[in-house]
Amino acid sequence: MRKILVLGAGKSTSYLLDYFLEKSESEKIRITIGDLHPEAIAPHIRNHHACEVVSLDIFEEASRLQLIYQSDIVVSMLPASLHYIIAKDCLIKGKHLVTASYISSELKKLSKDVEHKGLIFMNEIGLDPGIDHMSAMQVIDRIRNQGGKMILFESFTGGLVAPESDNNLWNYKFTWNPRNVVLAGQGGTAKFIQEGTYKYIPYHRLFRRTEFFDIEGYGRFEGYANRDSLNYREAYGLKDVLTLYRGTLRRVGFSKAWNLFVQLGMTDDSYIVENSEGMSYRDFTNLFLPYSPTDSVELKLRHYLKIDQDDIMWEKLLELDLFNPEKTVPLENATPAQMLQYILESCWTLSDTDKDMIVMYHKFGYELDGEKYQIDSNMAVIGENRTHTAMAKTVGLPVAMATLAILNKKITTPGVQIPLKSEVYEPILSELKSYGIAFKEYEVPYLGYNPETFIV
Amino acid sequence: MRKILVLGAGKSTSYLLDYFLEKSESEKIRITIGDLHPEAIAPHIRNHHACEVVSLDIFEEASRLQLIYQSDIVVSMLPASLHYIIAKDCLIKGKHLVTASYISSELKKLSKDVEHKGLIFMNEIGLDPGIDHMSAMQVIDRIRNQGGKMILFESFTGGLVAPESDNNLWNYKFTWNPRNVVLAGQGGTAKFIQEGTYKYIPYHRLFRRTEFFDIEGYGRFEGYANRDSLNYREAYGLKDVLTLYRGTLRRVGFSKAWNLFVQLGMTDDSYIVENSEGMSYRDFTNLFLPYSPTDSVELKLRHYLKIDQDDIMWEKLLELDLFNPEKTVPLENATPAQMLQYILESCWTLSDTDKDMIVMYHKFGYELDGEKYQIDSNMAVIGENRTHTAMAKTVGLPVAMATLAILNKKITTPGVQIPLKSEVYEPILSELKSYGIAFKEYEVPYLGYNPETFIV
Repeated sequence: MRKILVLGAGKSTSYLLDYFLEKSESEKIRITIGDLHPEAIAPHIRNHHACEVVSLDIFEEASRLQLIYQSDIVVSMLPASLHYIIAKDCLIKGKHLVTASYISSELKKLSKDVEHKGLIFMNEIGLDPGIDHMSAMQVIDRIRNQGGKMILFESFTGGLVAPESDNNLWNYKFTWNPRNVVLAGQGGTAKFIQEGTYKYIPYHRLFRRTEFFDIEGYGRFEGYANRDSLNYREAYGLKDVLTLYRGTLRRVGFSKAWNLFVQLGMTDDSYIVENSEGMSYRDFTNLFLPYSPTDSVELKLRHYLKIDQDDIMWEKLLELDLFNPEKTVPLENATPAQMLQYILESCWTLSDTDKDMIVMYHKFGYELDGEKYQIDSNMAVIGENRTHTAMAKTVGLPVAMATLAILNKKITTPGVQIPLKSEVYEPILSELKSYGIAFKEYEVPYLGYNPETFIV
Repeated sequence: MRKILVLGAGKSTSYLLDYFLEKSESEKIRITIGDLHPEAIAPHIRNHHACEVVSLDIFEEASRLQLIYQSDIVVSMLPASLHYIIAKDCLIKGKHLVTASYISSELKKLSKDVEHKGLIFMNEIGLDPGIDHMSAMQVIDRIRNQGGKMILFESFTGGLVAPESDNNLWNYKFTWNPRNVVLAGQGGTAKFIQEGTYKYIPYHRLFRRTEFFDIEGYGRFEGYANRDSLNYREAYGLKDVLTLYRGTLRRVGFSKAWNLFVQLGMTDDSYIVENSEGMSYRDFTNLFLPYSPTDSVELKLRHYLKIDQDDIMWEKLLELDLFNPEKTVPLENATPAQMLQYILESCWTLSDTDKDMIVMYHKFGYELDGEKYQIDSNMAVIGENRTHTAMAKTVGLPVAMATLAILNKKITTPGVQIPLKSEVYEPILSELKSYGIAFKEYEVPYLGYNPETFIV
């Protein structure tokens, strides 16, 4: 019997836990779940014979160390900021570690010690980061093995609502942390590179600089740039690539409407609104509009943002009830972003029967024997329901598969790492297919960026 | 003989020094100027019999303390960040201090000790802050003494180019620190209050929310909001005022054109542009525009910012040569804001014969016997030449006058302070008139903000 310790049983762990328990006999594994509120864990998991549930406050060092000591491998599904604590424990106790989060700079510093002890600390092996790394590296390595030279890489991911549950004008519902959605793009100027030219997009223009993507059977999406597309340039071996562009997918029209919030200043999280508690939606909206003794909030907003009478953007605002003088925000000392989040959550939360959807789109441009080629590759996954979401599936399954592969010594390279090696991505991408998580590839004409006729 | 120590003889000190020297006999004063580069001081000052010039590195404590010890009062025209060092010395040696800068929070903490020693540390007694405080408080106190209740206060100041030297399409030249002009408005969301309603303007809309001001004989100006109009609410005794709005004046049309830079992201100072050194103006502009293999930078910018063929904004950009592929920016590891500043400085620097202009505009709304009234008050000052600028005059003269008033015991209240008391503003405003720095007052109909018919 091998023992897997899963720390944190939040909403993204449904598929992860099911996967382990389904394989508990064939793989001879037992799982222990350490969580602050174990009573919230679904009964079919809690009562499974191969599962033990422990009430754990992660800041109680003794019980935490004890649990880690008793396990063969640790899966941390805790908030990313807590991973470092767990990582240090795993290093002390000599245990492998798997997380779906970005490697922090402090975690990176443990790499030598981890390697020295022959341990594997696998990170960024969820969806994004995770499946994006693996699916991209599989194609990039194949192109290179054929003798091709990478010249373009674009990669976009979106967590959206499934078409069958898509019943609002924004074609959007929250399927993940709403706060991150409201603050998206605010970390700093977006930076990327196109045909060798650096491009910079300030936050207030980000949602007006979208690119379209079509996914067969799922329709059209739009993508806006992530803050720094140049992360992973070295890790992917794309140092000389001419185009490197990463971003987030939404349904077409979302970004243009979201831009209204940005323009007004409603997504600002840097200051507290005076008298926020009990403020009506209408007064909230009026905070960002010029004063007038006579004109209505409606007309002021239409004029300020140049929204025509027949513009669908107007209906999108009405759908959120932004001009309602009766509905109020109950938040004390709130920022505009927090108040907007409250308003949006009352409209954009998944209902019990709603399904979510994950979409991912890569573009690979390369040169081979003097010719330019392009491969587009994309994936769409629909969730089952509100607990078994596509998000939980695409985050949880790669984590679970990597955990088992480490236990089974199929992944053997030690160190603090992300899944860029074929020993990691080949078996996992192959197994993900049997769960309906699969990429379709298309050979398409090269994007048309042509350095020879390049006019700046 | 009384001894005045002036620390720092930079460009804003021409009138200040002339004032002291003119009065050296009648007032029996001698001045000592401590400066890092005393050789740059004008000969008619340096060689004046009542003036001594000392080469001083402000960080050499012994010589600094010695100079302060030998003086009766200290005037610090050093950069604001250095005032605290001088203030501590003055406290130790028991000397009065005058500066034109904002009171820092650390300086404020010295207040008790300063009071205890019977010293006067007068700050914010230049133009803005300075003349704005004094001219506003004079009217506010008068309204209150008549039994009026203040309900509205707006105050706007601008440092501009004089009409006779105004020969570019922007109607603007740098008359003060160019970096501050490029970064204006970036400290955070602008916040003010109108008819009891808080209003917030994010940076990327700041330059589209202007208000017009007409000054007799000088034409029309526009004002955009300062970051926090609510500073001085308590200090001015305006806690219950319904409208409080402070800002910066420009010529009409400047802000709309400046907004192009903001929209593009050219005023961003938060990151370093890759390969900035030697980059052409054209490539710099293209950093902020979408990639295209065929379209010109010109058309991309026109389309991106919706600039029509016949829009004067286009001519403003051409005047700056923003599309020139030959002119280059020589700055290494520069931010967009630094690169933009370089480009602007080559167009907007005062020539030897150019004159600058200072304009200030206040609005005072009040209730008296159930009626609403408004007084508008404004001032315009034209400079003489590039050294005797209106900026140097309006900053330096109030500092000089306050210094003498302290020496002559006309200002007697001790403590770390700003010029809000009539013992300070009455004599200084009166004397400033004889130097052509005078406000004109107009009784005008109340602004029309009417809480009774107030529709939000």
